[in-house]
Amino acid sequence: MRSMTKSTRQIQIGQVTIGGPAIAIIAGPCSIESEAQFLEAASQAKKAGAHLLRGGIYKLRTHPQSFQGLGDPALAIAESVRKKLGMPLVSEITDPRQIEGMISIIDVFQVGTRNMYNYPLLKELGKTSKPVLLKRSFSASIEEWLLAAEYIESSGNPNVILCERGIRTFERATRNTLDLSAVAFVKQHSTLPVIVDPSHATGRRDLIEPMSLAAIAAGADGLLIEMHPNAAASLSDGHQAIDGEDLARILSRVEKLGQAIDRPILRLA
Amino acid sequence: MRSMTKSTRQIQIGQVTIGGPAIAIIAGPCSIESEAQFLEAASQAKKAGAHLLRGGIYKLRTHPQSFQGLGDPALAIAESVRKKLGMPLVSEITDPRQIEGMISIIDVFQVGTRNMYNYPLLKELGKTSKPVLLKRSFSASIEEWLLAAEYIESSGNPNVILCERGIRTFERATRNTLDLSAVAFVKQHSTLPVIVDPSHATGRRDLIEPMSLAAIAAGADGLLIEMHPNAAASLSDGHQAIDGEDLARILSRVEKLGQAIDRPILRLA
Amino acid sequence: MRSMTKSTRQIQIGQVTIGGPAIAIIAGPCSIESEAQFLEAASQAKKAGAHLLRGGIYKLRTHPQSFQGLGDPALAIAESVRKKLGMPLVSEITDPRQIEGMISIIDVFQVGTRNMYNYPLLKELGKTSKPVLLKRSFSASIEEWLLAAEYIESSGNPNVILCERGIRTFERATRNTLDLSAVAFVKQHSTLPVIVDPSHATGRRDLIEPMSLAAIAAGADGLLIEMHPNAAASLSDGHQAIDGEDLARILSRVEKLGQAIDRPILRLA
Amino acid sequence: MRSMTKSTRQIQIGQVTIGGPAIAIIAGPCSIESEAQFLEAASQAKKAGAHLLRGGIYKLRTHPQSFQGLGDPALAIAESVRKKLGMPLVSEITDPRQIEGMISIIDVFQVGTRNMYNYPLLKELGKTSKPVLLKRSFSASIEEWLLAAEYIESSGNPNVILCERGIRTFERATRNTLDLSAVAFVKQHSTLPVIVDPSHATGRRDLIEPMSLAAIAAGADGLLIEMHPNAAASLSDGHQAIDGEDLARILSRVEKLGQAIDRPILRLA
Repeated sequence: MRSMTKSTRQIQIGQVTIGGPAIAIIAGPCSIESEAQFLEAASQAKKAGAHLLRGGIYKLRTHPQSFQGLGDPALAIAESVRKKLGMPLVSEITDPRQIEGMISIIDVFQVGTRNMYNYPLLKELGKTSKPVLLKRSFSASIEEWLLAAEYIESSGNPNVILCERGIRTFERATRNTLDLSAVAFVKQHSTLPVIVDPSHATGRRDLIEPMSLAAIAAGADGLLIEMHPNAAASLSDGHQAIDGEDLARILSRVEKLGQAIDRPILRLA
Repeated sequence: MRSMTKSTRQIQIGQVTIGGPAIAIIAGPCSIESEAQFLEAASQAKKAGAHLLRGGIYKLRTHPQSFQGLGDPALAIAESVRKKLGMPLVSEITDPRQIEGMISIIDVFQVGTRNMYNYPLLKELGKTSKPVLLKRSFSASIEEWLLAAEYIESSGNPNVILCERGIRTFERATRNTLDLSAVAFVKQHSTLPVIVDPSHATGRRDLIEPMSLAAIAAGADGLLIEMHPNAAASLSDGHQAIDGEDLARILSRVEKLGQAIDRPILRLA
Repeated sequence: MRSMTKSTRQIQIGQVTIGGPAIAIIAGPCSIESEAQFLEAASQAKKAGAHLLRGGIYKLRTHPQSFQGLGDPALAIAESVRKKLGMPLVSEITDPRQIEGMISIIDVFQVGTRNMYNYPLLKELGKTSKPVLLKRSFSASIEEWLLAAEYIESSGNPNVILCERGIRTFERATRNTLDLSAVAFVKQHSTLPVIVDPSHATGRRDLIEPMSLAAIAAGADGLLIEMHPNAAASLSDGHQAIDGEDLARILSRVEKLGQAIDRPILRLA
Repeated sequence: MRSMTKSTRQIQIGQVTIGGPAIAIIAGPCSIESEAQFLEAASQAKKAGAHLLRGGIYKLRTHPQSFQGLGDPALAIAESVRKKLGMPLVSEITDPRQIEGMISIIDVFQVGTRNMYNYPLLKELGKTSKPVLLKRSFSASIEEWLLAAEYIESSGNPNVILCERGIRTFERATRNTLDLSAVAFVKQHSTLPVIVDPSHATGRRDLIEPMSLAAIAAGADGLLIEMHPNAAASLSDGHQAIDGEDLARILSRVEKLGQAIDRPILRLA
């Protein structure tokens, strides 16, 4: 049993490296709801130890009448909070026509699970040089996921970070089925860094800690965790959000486990 | 057991009605490859009894190096063949920015299985009045599929035709698993017409006839069948394409079955 | 597109042939609850046009506290009703040790979806000469299903009837996803007759009629329909059971459709 | 986020406790092929640090012509090797009629994935007091798995150990999809200990190490690893088997990770 693990491409986002020996943490609310809410969430995320901030400007929702994100008005909020805290920002893009407005404000374009097959969008993102966080479609084979990354790369942008977030199966106790074998597989057969989103994968607060630990043990290069300063009041996906104290506790356990397998949590200068 | 079948909304495309008592047939090649190829395919489709012509201008392909459709140059071919044969044209849209170029040339916008969750695209199509053929995502629940239709309708366009084309399951003998219960379910719980694509659902030439018959028996309002004048030479998806003679034979059996359950094949004046 | 449909092996059960040009109907309650209930159900099934009677003596239930069938006491009821009505009886076997008690009373051993992989049971049934109705496991590939049949055949019993009853997928609107492509596939690649159970496949009364029609259109050699004289009072699976009048109405539509494709309903002398 | 983890029932097998703070390791070949092969495999497993020995006497194989295990002749081999090495033995039971021959020779009855729904077998095992290792069916929901355990418990035997071994999904890069969320879920909502089989879950030698680590991180109480002294020559499932040296290396990494999260590997006196 020779180790066939390929060396992982390192993606640089400001001071943060994803794909190096150290683990990177992305945290924040599903949606930006107001400046106060986002600043509070971001501050909690930073205090808990997150390196990058997450916040949804544009949302894809199954129900056309559900809250779809603040949209354009959230751009200014995002810019202001990002500057105040000095944290790089990850935000989802849902339409190629949003690139222009987002590109100077965000640090990583997130492609959501429903857009992994949106090849025109991937090609457009491939023409930029911004890092792209490519979530696996909940119905994509690993092969399709890697080929979607190739759409971005072959358009000129090598800065792709994969994100496993659960696949759709018959199981109903969890929102999706987190496929950690896919993480280990990708680490061995691809050079792309891969992170894990335990929040959307499980849809359950109580599984975020064990699945965060398991993700790092399986080889993930980082975590994307949904966090809300007041989880109960969150306008979207609140049932799976944790607060800043929860996040700090989870990260301290992740740190302990990571040290044992030579995956320390990233320390910024 | 009361019949709860809702009355179906009728969508008018030129002389063709989808959602009435009669069954409509859409046929044609996966991709427009050249004027000669498309004209030949279209002529065969018309001769075999198809009412609408199908032909791909823009294609979404899993591999970035696969043939992606001719793109813009196919627009003129599409226009020319449509005019020559006097048949309405159904073609897939993969990016909201294609609406402008396509809207005067095609009669039905097809939204492919990978774009069912592309809500920005659906909203843009909802601002037009062209009929939209909304394929079910291979991973969408029936509920998500109906809600995707609502994105188009609530943007102002009621002309939505659903299309079941197989879902992704563990089974590998067929390319996808054709879900005909979903067709029967939609006929009872929605007012939208629904057609079936047995070609992509099964990925096997030899299953197109039995699945076409079963689709009509389950209540489908029409069929979308991939047809290629020379199936072996087709640049994409040729393994599931049939030729014009095959199509004529299948339609004659569909007609016989349809008559027995009061679903005749549509006759144009 | 040459027809590659193999000729189907005909299985004889008393006067009833399964696998010939004519369609056979099996109907009856999920469980035998009492002599009065089973006689009433059987009489309704016979009157509605069923050829074989179905009735559960031993049941496999997910919950250990659910009603598990009457068990041995139902054997005498089964024998009595079968004799009174002169109809062959299909009943599920759940343990090889039940063969001895059942073999003189029932005409077809039914292997349920949860036992398709129970190879020791299949081998024992292969040592008898009684027809075996082999339900597909809800998680079995077509290949595994055909190989399970081979366990029975290679033990010496060629009298195998396949039964498609829905597979487990992500879809939740229906109890399972009825896989009619599998029926068409099996008709082309195997010599075994195949019937369809639309009741367990869909779990919904209102889908039994369209799925019965679709099954016959797809090539099924028969139907297995759950029927209860008083559906609301059924102790198990009542939500999908229809009554005798419903069955008669469905069969009259099946007959009409069948005639159009040369699959008449079986007429007994 | 209160920890809702229930305290886990401890199952005693000789000197080995499953469900306590320490992790237990079960290893050995898929099938007992000969005394020499099994003794060699068992010695390697013991040397590598395994606490319990695994060896198949009776096998369920998809193909009726595949090697089905040595059957009864393997009982004497099992007994001899178990005595020589002083290691408790885990072996699969496939038919209730095997209980009598196995009960004095093996220490844990393993119920394979294909028999999880074989309730008559579970009830019979519930009448013994031997520990039962209950593998999850590859198509079972977590709820069905816990209810299957209840069949054993409500028949009188509380000594149930759950084993997650991958579920069947659309993904084809791995043999099954290892569902570690299910492990974490079960730890929180049940009192039963749960172990993980990374060999059958992934079907790939190169994923056994990362998935073993991830399983322990997710909360598993132990591992069941397939090991073969000469993996290439194994008559069944050789593609996923590792040898003794591989196992030792994996366990040393598991130990390191386990210590960081207070899950040491079990030390026998």
